[in-house]
Amino acid sequence: MTRSLIAVDWGTSSLRAARIALDGRVLEERSSQRGILTVPPGGFPAVLDETCGDWLGAPDALCLVSGMAGSKQGWREAPYCPCPAGFGELGRALAWIAPGRIALVPGLRCEHEGVPDVMRGEEVQVFGALSLLDLDDGVFVLPGTHSKWVEVRDGAVQSFRTCMTGEFYALLRQHSILARTLPPEDGPLQEAEFLQGVRHAQAAGSLLAAAFSARTLALFDRLPPAAQASYLSGLVIGEELRAQGALPPHVVLIGSDALTRRYTLALGELGTGTRSLGSEATWRGLRALASTLESP
Amino acid sequence: MTRSLIAVDWGTSSLRAARIALDGRVLEERSSQRGILTVPPGGFPAVLDETCGDWLGAPDALCLVSGMAGSKQGWREAPYCPCPAGFGELGRALAWIAPGRIALVPGLRCEHEGVPDVMRGEEVQVFGALSLLDLDDGVFVLPGTHSKWVEVRDGAVQSFRTCMTGEFYALLRQHSILARTLPPEDGPLQEAEFLQGVRHAQAAGSLLAAAFSARTLALFDRLPPAAQASYLSGLVIGEELRAQGALPPHVVLIGSDALTRRYTLALGELGTGTRSLGSEATWRGLRALASTLESP
Repeated sequence: MTRSLIAVDWGTSSLRAARIALDGRVLEERSSQRGILTVPPGGFPAVLDETCGDWLGAPDALCLVSGMAGSKQGWREAPYCPCPAGFGELGRALAWIAPGRIALVPGLRCEHEGVPDVMRGEEVQVFGALSLLDLDDGVFVLPGTHSKWVEVRDGAVQSFRTCMTGEFYALLRQHSILARTLPPEDGPLQEAEFLQGVRHAQAAGSLLAAAFSARTLALFDRLPPAAQASYLSGLVIGEELRAQGALPPHVVLIGSDALTRRYTLALGELGTGTRSLGSEATWRGLRALASTLESP
Repeated sequence: MTRSLIAVDWGTSSLRAARIALDGRVLEERSSQRGILTVPPGGFPAVLDETCGDWLGAPDALCLVSGMAGSKQGWREAPYCPCPAGFGELGRALAWIAPGRIALVPGLRCEHEGVPDVMRGEEVQVFGALSLLDLDDGVFVLPGTHSKWVEVRDGAVQSFRTCMTGEFYALLRQHSILARTLPPEDGPLQEAEFLQGVRHAQAAGSLLAAAFSARTLALFDRLPPAAQASYLSGLVIGEELRAQGALPPHVVLIGSDALTRRYTLALGELGTGTRSLGSEATWRGLRALASTLESP
């Protein structure tokens, strides 16, 4: 790299930024709650300036912004790049805000059974994981509100699939009939009941049926109140794993420690090994993307 | 029958009652919003008296109450009767409030994969359907907040399974990210998009994955806003049908006209024929149950 990088991960509910040296070291990180939902139309330059205006003043700085800032509801739309897509395709599809200085990274789209799927931000994490782990192929799982299962071959994302896992958990936890008997706080993870939920999800074959078991087990005093949230979490994550069909022998997890720990347990129960990465994947992905822009 | 019957269907959110003549004719029906959630502890006799005290005064009257009034949260618990169970088992398990005069009908329970399932009120509708259609066997589907699929053989409920279909629809409709783009009112059913949702549920293999298609199709303008609620309804009902595995060639639907119409369309799309019954099944079921009490 011949230029320093300002890497920005600008999502729906938060904004994170890092200043990255020529040699790849993360020199400084900042974050705020100024997710795109808090930014009024036209307000994006000012919020970026508040966050890291001092960094942007450096004459050689390149700023790459990934995440929902590039969506219709964001700063400007960087149209989804179709799969298969590698670094090259992503780099060519950047939406330049200030030519040569500030760009939005597009998301990816693919199609299954005549239905489109999309992601925005996760693609950078996947490319970062490829770079960190020196891989060209693999299955990458990014758990969250909308979990992504991403298939990479020859350094390019071939296809991916979204599961609304975190959102279904929150809906059932907060708004369903199950919420009436669940304790107000989740408490620490109860591994035995979490794995019981993972296994029942496989047997039940659909979360519509499996979810009712959280109620009936409680009704017959077969599930302690303190373990109900863990059991429900196991049902929902177990359903996500069931939905993949035959699981690969190994996947790479990218996400928070709390989530990757649950997925490691659940996948292990079903015979799949894991490696886990955290937020370092985002910075590494943006840096790798910046490198491709310098290629002749 | 040698006694007139006061049939009461006392659910969570409503109370319905019918006075039934010796020959089986429904002489009068009443309903109120006094579901069990509105009744304070000890208040059940007074609410029943308000609703049909004049009927209860008849010297020969027998009053049978089905539904959640027989649950722990209701008037008194009539413990779940284990499957397989026919009229005889149900009649012997009545919880008598006033011996020989007023009784609560128990619900049923069964067990799948080490997990219990329960119903309360639907069993009476199933027995009513058997009587109305002169059947001893069949698959009975009771769509609703918690849909029930009931397998009957030799006049007895062998097993059943609950799907939280109506509740999942409401959660996604009202509280999920999909709610942000859905019009505030469902509007009339759009059959083409409803059936598109039913088919996609089969292809997707899990509602966790299928539900995201309601968002992405809208994002790419492939689903008109006025059809989004119908599509989502098709996804959720389609998931319930997928969860059953191989569908039988024919089922009996018991429920409201609006719901049985949707299930008829969805089941027809997957090659299963239907017959539909409404609230008459409840009265017929309670009458048939009353008849068994008179057998020597």
